[in-house]
Amino acid sequence: MKEVLAIIRPNMVSKTVKALEAVGFPALTIIKCFGRGKEKGYIDAVLPEDVDKEKILKEGEKEGLRMKYIPKRMLSIVVDEVDIPLVVGIIMKINRTGKPGDGKIFVLPVEEAIRIRTGEVGIKAIGN
Amino acid sequence: MKEVLAIIRPNMVSKTVKALEAVGFPALTIIKCFGRGKEKGYIDAVLPEDVDKEKILKEGEKEGLRMKYIPKRMLSIVVDEVDIPLVVGIIMKINRTGKPGDGKIFVLPVEEAIRIRTGEVGIKAIGN
Amino acid sequence: MKEVLAIIRPNMVSKTVKALEAVGFPALTIIKCFGRGKEKGYIDAVLPEDVDKEKILKEGEKEGLRMKYIPKRMLSIVVDEVDIPLVVGIIMKINRTGKPGDGKIFVLPVEEAIRIRTGEVGIKAIGN
Repeated sequence: MKEVLAIIRPNMVSKTVKALEAVGFPALTIIKCFGRGKEKGYIDAVLPEDVDKEKILKEGEKEGLRMKYIPKRMLSIVVDEVDIPLVVGIIMKINRTGKPGDGKIFVLPVEEAIRIRTGEVGIKAIGN
Repeated sequence: MKEVLAIIRPNMVSKTVKALEAVGFPALTIIKCFGRGKEKGYIDAVLPEDVDKEKILKEGEKEGLRMKYIPKRMLSIVVDEVDIPLVVGIIMKINRTGKPGDGKIFVLPVEEAIRIRTGEVGIKAIGN
Repeated sequence: MKEVLAIIRPNMVSKTVKALEAVGFPALTIIKCFGRGKEKGYIDAVLPEDVDKEKILKEGEKEGLRMKYIPKRMLSIVVDEVDIPLVVGIIMKINRTGKPGDGKIFVLPVEEAIRIRTGEVGIKAIGN
């Protein structure tokens, strides 16, 4: 099993979750986080145009409309190894706008999974 | 060393932490998160009866008292490999109600641990 | 590739991020969390002196100024294996005060990284 960690835009979570569910991956964990990629959080590049950029900048972060930390969401989905290309492909398809701030995906090894309610382990614990 | 990631109900954190501490695992990290299991977040199944379900539902989530994302807590505990059965067993014992929403446990490999204050590494960094 | 997970004091994030960026690691994810180390969250040891300790304690946590959960920040930085000593060294240097609560660093294996915007994988996905 593998953990797919996707760091994506907050406004892409709903669409991503729906797509994953439609293909058979309803189970996931969502964590609010803040991120910077190699663009280092330039606010012009990563925020929607209708956002009042001055409003969300904190004191000391106003240097040229640059924001230190960009709100992101981390999606954690534990899947069977054979499903990695599918899950990664769906996340890529939904989240790829071509603009800085699209996010990243990491794949980590998972040695065991247990469903607490039933005691099921392994693939049975993460399956439907 | 291994990281035990447990995604459990918010109201089970205190009891779980006390049990882990009582057996010698006081060190852990707690992260607020949101989750869905294979039940996809049906609100009837996972919320305590005394909660006003309508109140916590956001707009657009009211389809049949279904809630998209269930508040959860992620507990991260890094332990020696030999302690995995004990730590997993404690988390199972405390969190298993038999109802949907009990949560999941994942075990991930950890290659190194360092206590910043002392520079201790490995088991010494995570031990008492 | 490896994931460096550092659990540090909230007021050390800015300094740590600046140091990492200065050495060529601008990309990271920051997550709010709560932690306890082996000190079990004794409030005297881990809070700045100018904080009103009574004020931040919740009901039921007032036993001898002890606080169950200490606000922390988790920094996640995915780097090439060869950069581990450098990244860990920087985090240690900035965050080591010698007082309880300095935090911990964990190193986890990462099998794949993908930059969503470009589709780049591996070292290219995490590099500058």
